[in-house]
Amino acid sequence: MKRPMQAALVCFTVTMSQLACTMRPALDQPNIIIFLADDFGYGDLSSYGHPTQEFGPIDQMGREGMRFTRWYAPSLFCSPSRGAMLTGRYPVRIGLYGERQLPFPVFAQNSSAGLPKEEITTAEALKSLGYATGMVGKWHLGINEFNASDGSHLPKHHGFDFVGTNLPLSNVWRCDLTKTMIPSPDRTSCYLYYGDTILQQPFSHHNLTSALLLEAKAFVYDHQHEPFFFYFSFPHTHSNMFSSEAFKNSSRRGVYGDSVNEMSWAVGEMLQLLRDLKLERNTLAVFLSDHGPEREMCKEGGVSSPLKGWKGMTWEGGVRVPAIAWWPGTVPADITNHQVISSMDLFSLAIDLAGGTPPTDRIIDGRSIKEVILHGGRSPDRALFHYCGKRIMAVQHGKYKVHYYTQEIRTDESLRAFCGPTGIPDVRGDYYCGDCHSSPCVTTHNPPLLYDLNEDPEEAYPLPAQEHAEVLREVARLVSEHEAGMVHGTPLFNDEFFGSSLIPCCNPPYCAC
Amino acid sequence: MKRPMQAALVCFTVTMSQLACTMRPALDQPNIIIFLADDFGYGDLSSYGHPTQEFGPIDQMGREGMRFTRWYAPSLFCSPSRGAMLTGRYPVRIGLYGERQLPFPVFAQNSSAGLPKEEITTAEALKSLGYATGMVGKWHLGINEFNASDGSHLPKHHGFDFVGTNLPLSNVWRCDLTKTMIPSPDRTSCYLYYGDTILQQPFSHHNLTSALLLEAKAFVYDHQHEPFFFYFSFPHTHSNMFSSEAFKNSSRRGVYGDSVNEMSWAVGEMLQLLRDLKLERNTLAVFLSDHGPEREMCKEGGVSSPLKGWKGMTWEGGVRVPAIAWWPGTVPADITNHQVISSMDLFSLAIDLAGGTPPTDRIIDGRSIKEVILHGGRSPDRALFHYCGKRIMAVQHGKYKVHYYTQEIRTDESLRAFCGPTGIPDVRGDYYCGDCHSSPCVTTHNPPLLYDLNEDPEEAYPLPAQEHAEVLREVARLVSEHEAGMVHGTPLFNDEFFGSSLIPCCNPPYCAC
Repeated sequence: MKRPMQAALVCFTVTMSQLACTMRPALDQPNIIIFLADDFGYGDLSSYGHPTQEFGPIDQMGREGMRFTRWYAPSLFCSPSRGAMLTGRYPVRIGLYGERQLPFPVFAQNSSAGLPKEEITTAEALKSLGYATGMVGKWHLGINEFNASDGSHLPKHHGFDFVGTNLPLSNVWRCDLTKTMIPSPDRTSCYLYYGDTILQQPFSHHNLTSALLLEAKAFVYDHQHEPFFFYFSFPHTHSNMFSSEAFKNSSRRGVYGDSVNEMSWAVGEMLQLLRDLKLERNTLAVFLSDHGPEREMCKEGGVSSPLKGWKGMTWEGGVRVPAIAWWPGTVPADITNHQVISSMDLFSLAIDLAGGTPPTDRIIDGRSIKEVILHGGRSPDRALFHYCGKRIMAVQHGKYKVHYYTQEIRTDESLRAFCGPTGIPDVRGDYYCGDCHSSPCVTTHNPPLLYDLNEDPEEAYPLPAQEHAEVLREVARLVSEHEAGMVHGTPLFNDEFFGSSLIPCCNPPYCAC
Repeated sequence: MKRPMQAALVCFTVTMSQLACTMRPALDQPNIIIFLADDFGYGDLSSYGHPTQEFGPIDQMGREGMRFTRWYAPSLFCSPSRGAMLTGRYPVRIGLYGERQLPFPVFAQNSSAGLPKEEITTAEALKSLGYATGMVGKWHLGINEFNASDGSHLPKHHGFDFVGTNLPLSNVWRCDLTKTMIPSPDRTSCYLYYGDTILQQPFSHHNLTSALLLEAKAFVYDHQHEPFFFYFSFPHTHSNMFSSEAFKNSSRRGVYGDSVNEMSWAVGEMLQLLRDLKLERNTLAVFLSDHGPEREMCKEGGVSSPLKGWKGMTWEGGVRVPAIAWWPGTVPADITNHQVISSMDLFSLAIDLAGGTPPTDRIIDGRSIKEVILHGGRSPDRALFHYCGKRIMAVQHGKYKVHYYTQEIRTDESLRAFCGPTGIPDVRGDYYCGDCHSSPCVTTHNPPLLYDLNEDPEEAYPLPAQEHAEVLREVARLVSEHEAGMVHGTPLFNDEFFGSSLIPCCNPPYCAC
């Protein structure tokens, strides 16, 4: 399915009445935009089957591009998933794990650690290849290292030259201003920065999306004449739910749907800007989620249907995410792609498209999926390993999924009891069954559970182990090979990396508290 | 959203070199085709979110037409659902229920009863309005009344002037020729007729779909110059699975996917014929399923995701079906419609479009949804009652669903044990929890369970009864009103209507046994 090389007319205003136009080949250092959603489930979009969510610009992006059905998150939680996506390396290699799963499987406000400086992010790699780099939105890869305001781990220190409004952590239920989840927001959990500078604590959701969008648009406008990499990392749809006035009651689905509609609108605005600037044929835009939706947020959480399980689990619903690649004229339109992809592949893809080569001094787990997105080619023939902490829970290998350990699925009754009569959880500390090492949370399977995800995407009917001994042996071999080549990074979510003196604090009048 | 009246050019060949053309307004007695699938789930199509099912002509039909998200089957089982769809009346009115749910909630080969003759089918109503009428495929509304070959209940006796190849019952697992489900097919369950005449016993699946399609095409071709009503009632995708050679291994999803692809191909061929004959602007085609998929068929059953429950249950997965209305130029293209519709509405819609008025000597439960399909108008403001046998289990009222009784959902473990290591059920008689009257199958809810299906299509988070007392009171009032106006038909699935002397039998050489 080879197609002729695409090219796009690129024009510059020379004087008020003159235009200078050149043909910039589509594949010549294309711009790259990543739209990342937070805790957004496989089944949360209309085009992925949600019955009441409105069909919006993200769905339309899928119509105009390639929609993936087997795109996998590199981790079950935010920080490790994001770190792996931006470095192309498994979280365990880069230290984004803890030896105990609790208190946190992610960075917190008092973490002294962050994404290690020696790791190379997509932003750093592309910057060295001549790209302008920028980001807005959720970071969650560390804040301070030495004191409450050094900001040493923030995105500016990881290759992003422009960093606009950003959430160094997440928009969590503790940040709720509506008194739905919590009487008043917890100041120490809820920060909004601009670059390295704290702006609001706790932050207001009022016009947050518009602010992010405005800055993202300005970045694209400012860099329209050079290749750029932009990371639009949405606070949506992590709990708590929010949306601007314009999107309140926009969805028949309620507050979660309003939030999706707002995020979708922002994506649509960005794509329209690319068209307006005639950059659409020179820009790859990718929309994806960081991992599955948070079931324990009840009616404020997303859905992973038709998949089993949710955020924090290695069942498909925890690790498979909606994903769309859009690049008019280069990525074929209106294609559903069933290849097995990892978000880590974006690192290698970006470098490949930018004309570089991935670092050779370290193991890069992601692979360039250029042939997949350009020609519907096959994805790299490799297994994907689903970790919880340091433990390999499950392995993806072609159409097969092998579970060595599985996490407990809440029954309807248990969920109902947890969520209470309002469908808004009575939040009580650790509500993940996030400890992957002991019963009753975890079941060990020997022989392993094996599923054919083509025939059985719902993981309902395990295949008989005896008749598939060869598959199990091959996957065991791949695990051994993977483990033999694994050098674990220092576990940065261990207790020793949490210290109260590092908690950011707003210093009025320079910041609104 | 009023649009100008559509019209289509209708041309006739007068001589080899002459064409006579007239403009036939689209709304002037349009042709009507119903494509009905069997046990086909809400989540079984690519366009309804299935991750591995191929995007096919049925999905394309949805792109060119209106795709419904809240279309409801009138019953949990085949015969009553089909009878209600064809008469516009609840199964309990027309006797399509039993006072015990077992042995059968449907007609069997030894039933002396069938759809009562005094009921008026869509075919009869449209015939009286000048339509040509025809059908092929699954009937399941009765066979014989007095002896083994009178065929008194077959479709020819219910207004269908042309009846081609038809299955008076279903394509059930007992008809499996591949030795997957049963060592050899059960002759007494598996009949193929042409009109009133038995053709094969047991029947071969070889080229079955092609035969149905050929006859359906011939009917349309033969009646292209007059208004027609055609009922294409697929044996797909009731277990056991089959597909013609051309579709074997066509789907990454396996045998179920192959069957879906074949059915989808046949639908596509029919729509293409309409285009070729320039009838597409004068034809409403509707695709839908009779009810939810059969979970107990394991890997040979469909999926209802993201909904809860399956065939035989009043959870959404049992009663909500995929449905598409297609009528180029008249039904707006590429629209997702969220109105609450019942398959019973097709009866009133057909009569409305044909220029008639529904019978006034009986209660018709269906309503014309002409405004819904033409202009995206609101569906009739009425409740839908989900029965199991004679009992109202649940009620649909706008965005609300009220459950007075619910059926047990199999756990994953129970399903796995039932399905066994192959994912092919070890078939053991009655595998439905089909008795709606006693525990442990049925749970009584007082206060009733209440869900908001807009916010919670998965029926995961019941609303607090106290805060919604008004909704519950209103629904209770609607139930009382409905029950006050209900005259139950004679229960035709009661034991006394089953008799061994009525079992059809093939008489060689007139039929292949």
